Amino acid sequence: MSFDPASLRFNDAGLIPVIAQDAQSGEVLMLAWMNAEAITRTLETGDVTYWSRSRAEFWVKGATSGNVQKLVEFRLDCDRDCLLVEVDQTGPACHTGRRSCFYTKVEGGEEVVTDAPMES
Amino acid sequence: MSFDPASLRFNDAGLIPVIAQDAQSGEVLMLAWMNAEAITRTLETGDVTYWSRSRAEFWVKGATSGNVQKLVEFRLDCDRDCLLVEVDQTGPACHTGRRSCFYTKVEGGEEVVTDAPMES
Repeated sequence: MSFDPASLRFNDAGLIPVIAQDAQSGEVLMLAWMNAEAITRTLETGDVTYWSRSRAEFWVKGATSGNVQKLVEFRLDCDRDCLLVEVDQTGPACHTGRRSCFYTKVEGGEEVVTDAPMES
Repeated sequence: MSFDPASLRFNDAGLIPVIAQDAQSGEVLMLAWMNAEAITRTLETGDVTYWSRSRAEFWVKGATSGNVQKLVEFRLDCDRDCLLVEVDQTGPACHTGRRSCFYTKVEGGEEVVTDAPMES
């Protein structure tokens, strides 16, 4: 079956959540959002491209920071309302300089930061 | 720092996306949603509890199917608007009987189903 981005289920803002996972380690790096055009650009270029909700513009991951995400595998879920991209991530995925955005765990009711920013 | 679910950033419906990842294999199993009360219940009981948007009710994963998700680790992201739960998943996480909801990949413009339902 041919894949058509329009067949996905977008939210009222025309966006779909996208989980980015390190293709080698399996680490979950971040969650961001795409619209239909960002999906098309990601598939055509291999450069993972999100829609920035705060800036209201396309966001080619790493275009300014150099911390690019190259698409390795593109998956959709059973309900067609979430995407999973397996990526080759250069450097940190998180804007704090950490590899993953999920560097805080909750343990015994406390927030514990488990990862430090990467050496630059 | 003490963790307060109210400190998270929920969407207009009072929900936050939650990525469920197999704690052993690292496989991404599904994405679902929690409200503040579902988060509290998940942390208190260790049984991962979502908010079902379609049924508008709490959804203790596996309560009817037996395919429970036991909480292993609870993480939040840098923007406090997404959660990652590492889980001990019994059987399939997906309602189609597959281990993961992300059983369809896009390759060369085509949708390819890569996983079959688990043997029951």
